[in-house]
Amino acid sequence: MSDWSEHYAARETRMRASEVRELLKLLDQPDIISFAGGIPDAKLFPRQALVDAYDRVLKDPDRAGAALQYSVSEGYLPLRQFLAGDMQRLGVSCDPDNILITNGSQQALDFLGKLFIGSHDTILVGYPTFLGALQAFNAYEPHFDVLPGPGNNRTAASYLADGRRKPKFGYCMPEFQNPTGLTLDRAERERLLDFAEALNLPLIEDGAYERLRYDGAPVPPLLALAAARAGGIDKTKVLYCGTFSKSIVPGLRVGWIVAPKPVIEKLVLIKQASDLHTSGINQIVVHEVASTVIESQTASLRPVYQARRDAMLQALRDHMPHGVEWTRPEGGMFVWVTLPAAIDGAELLGRAVAEARVAFVPGAGFYPDRTGENHIRLSFSLNEPAKIADGIKRLGNLIKTVLAEAA
Amino acid sequence: MSDWSEHYAARETRMRASEVRELLKLLDQPDIISFAGGIPDAKLFPRQALVDAYDRVLKDPDRAGAALQYSVSEGYLPLRQFLAGDMQRLGVSCDPDNILITNGSQQALDFLGKLFIGSHDTILVGYPTFLGALQAFNAYEPHFDVLPGPGNNRTAASYLADGRRKPKFGYCMPEFQNPTGLTLDRAERERLLDFAEALNLPLIEDGAYERLRYDGAPVPPLLALAAARAGGIDKTKVLYCGTFSKSIVPGLRVGWIVAPKPVIEKLVLIKQASDLHTSGINQIVVHEVASTVIESQTASLRPVYQARRDAMLQALRDHMPHGVEWTRPEGGMFVWVTLPAAIDGAELLGRAVAEARVAFVPGAGFYPDRTGENHIRLSFSLNEPAKIADGIKRLGNLIKTVLAEAA
Repeated sequence: MSDWSEHYAARETRMRASEVRELLKLLDQPDIISFAGGIPDAKLFPRQALVDAYDRVLKDPDRAGAALQYSVSEGYLPLRQFLAGDMQRLGVSCDPDNILITNGSQQALDFLGKLFIGSHDTILVGYPTFLGALQAFNAYEPHFDVLPGPGNNRTAASYLADGRRKPKFGYCMPEFQNPTGLTLDRAERERLLDFAEALNLPLIEDGAYERLRYDGAPVPPLLALAAARAGGIDKTKVLYCGTFSKSIVPGLRVGWIVAPKPVIEKLVLIKQASDLHTSGINQIVVHEVASTVIESQTASLRPVYQARRDAMLQALRDHMPHGVEWTRPEGGMFVWVTLPAAIDGAELLGRAVAEARVAFVPGAGFYPDRTGENHIRLSFSLNEPAKIADGIKRLGNLIKTVLAEAA
Repeated sequence: MSDWSEHYAARETRMRASEVRELLKLLDQPDIISFAGGIPDAKLFPRQALVDAYDRVLKDPDRAGAALQYSVSEGYLPLRQFLAGDMQRLGVSCDPDNILITNGSQQALDFLGKLFIGSHDTILVGYPTFLGALQAFNAYEPHFDVLPGPGNNRTAASYLADGRRKPKFGYCMPEFQNPTGLTLDRAERERLLDFAEALNLPLIEDGAYERLRYDGAPVPPLLALAAARAGGIDKTKVLYCGTFSKSIVPGLRVGWIVAPKPVIEKLVLIKQASDLHTSGINQIVVHEVASTVIESQTASLRPVYQARRDAMLQALRDHMPHGVEWTRPEGGMFVWVTLPAAIDGAELLGRAVAEARVAFVPGAGFYPDRTGENHIRLSFSLNEPAKIADGIKRLGNLIKTVLAEAA
């Protein structure tokens, strides 16, 4: 093998393998109950609607030719028109020119990192925050600091103390956060906007799980609240990322960014330079499915995932020993578990896979500084209630064993 | 509108709209004969093979579920196995672990830029070179210098003169180069490898048009020649980029990188952080089509494009005034035209669209320093011979008019 170390750019040292992606390999072992991947259940995909959509596109030679040809970087216009209309559901008024189509919201995060982060800039995220966002942003070599929110009392002034340069943006997932499952209420969102306005700080809002609310009243997204304050989204500094990965299917890789038009114009140039455009046929198929069945599809997903969430919360109550705490999400796919401080989530995973045949994601990867070792993330999206109950029982028994050994 | 200028990273100043992508909009005007886009003819797509492939994947619920679910970042294993086998056709022995699947070769160039280029590093490219490569690399803020090759006499030592830091890589498209159509012969490739070895310089080899050779003997790719010298591709410093955009269809966005395994391991992390993975169903469909019909498909493409190339060369001979020169490509999609020095390609385009209803790409965008104003790139891939003859006649007459006006 040749030695490549001298050739890499400095950012290479920031690239580490994702615990989540590596753990996906565990799904292939049938006796493992996996609470690891935050992925939708393929049995719930709208397969017939997808088959019909492909059939409509491919049977027409002209339409098929266009769908399989190069296409424009900003994305398929009818899909951008659909999304501009659909954002009204969330209280956001926008035009197709406020929307860029991306390869899932992961690519949206990469592009926003590319546009805003210079090496050594500071950006603000939750501690914990979405692991994929940390990976996307890390390529542009930022420093991380904590975004104000529940659990901390940082002020705008504190970010400018000691002559520090202003942060470049804040990133958050206000609903059913990955990994905690927690949701910011309206007052918390307004306080976050107050903070951002005080610093003239752009906010990236990740709405990946927006359609998966099981109970509690909907809260307008940051983008809607900011547009109401500013008089339209083009006057805000909020950049909203959405995806069809949770509501339709992930494998088509279709997501989007809603942003002020000058930012979209820059992002279109980034899209051109990065991969020209998102697959045309995938955008057309997503448009066909979204514009016909997304409401009925997500209406059918919600009770299934809700029952799985409820099964997980009940099993945690039934099987976890004293000293273990967890969140109660109103939606999404995740419950965040806080273990007694003596237990390291990564070490627990090793024993969980070997002894209990249960998998999850250790908490440290969700923190920029890799603290949070005594947390684990459990996803309830992939297993049926009985299996969830079985897996949580096995995990609870293992934790009891670990605690007994340490006593 | 809010002012965003203070928020952007420094790299934003490098992002400019692509003449090529903007010009695609001209294709919608039916009376324009466009020689602009370097895009395949959608009438030649293997539509029935694609319809059959989608049908086979989607009619099986388990297979459809897997195709539409999240999948691994390195790419669909059967496709990587197919490509490892297919690279043997070019004299390259490699494993699936030497291959990463990307969203077309544009994303391969972006990822290689991300892995290797730090701000202010120097990279070497042809003057002219592929516009999309300049766009991809520009995001990482390099300096550009010229790669040794026909037309210049740079030595390895010249890149290290005056204490300069060694360049990070050289980028080239050895066959039917976009934009010139020129091909490096075997001796030129060996000299390029000698140069790269003298500097221990990685070379990025762009093989986008590899299957579109119309005449002349095939020459082994740089990767094959380097592997023969070094004793296997893992010991080389050549990174090969391929794509199905020209041989099957562009709209599925499937390309690949062949590289030493340590580089692929890094690129997999970049893929995870950038967009997780290339669409699973697209990879499966490309694999089905490639493994069944790629030889017959490309065999049917070649005579059609060859006839269009021949029509363009004949029309240039018939209609261009004295003082206009052009290349004679052995393959690919492009003829590169050198105009009399007084004619600016961008100004000519304005008149060509307005007066002659003909479009092409001005040359300056293919140069990092935007010299080359008196060149234009003509693509012969999209029009039938009679239309090519008509368009070149119109263009030749315009150039004669311009020269007469200047005389």
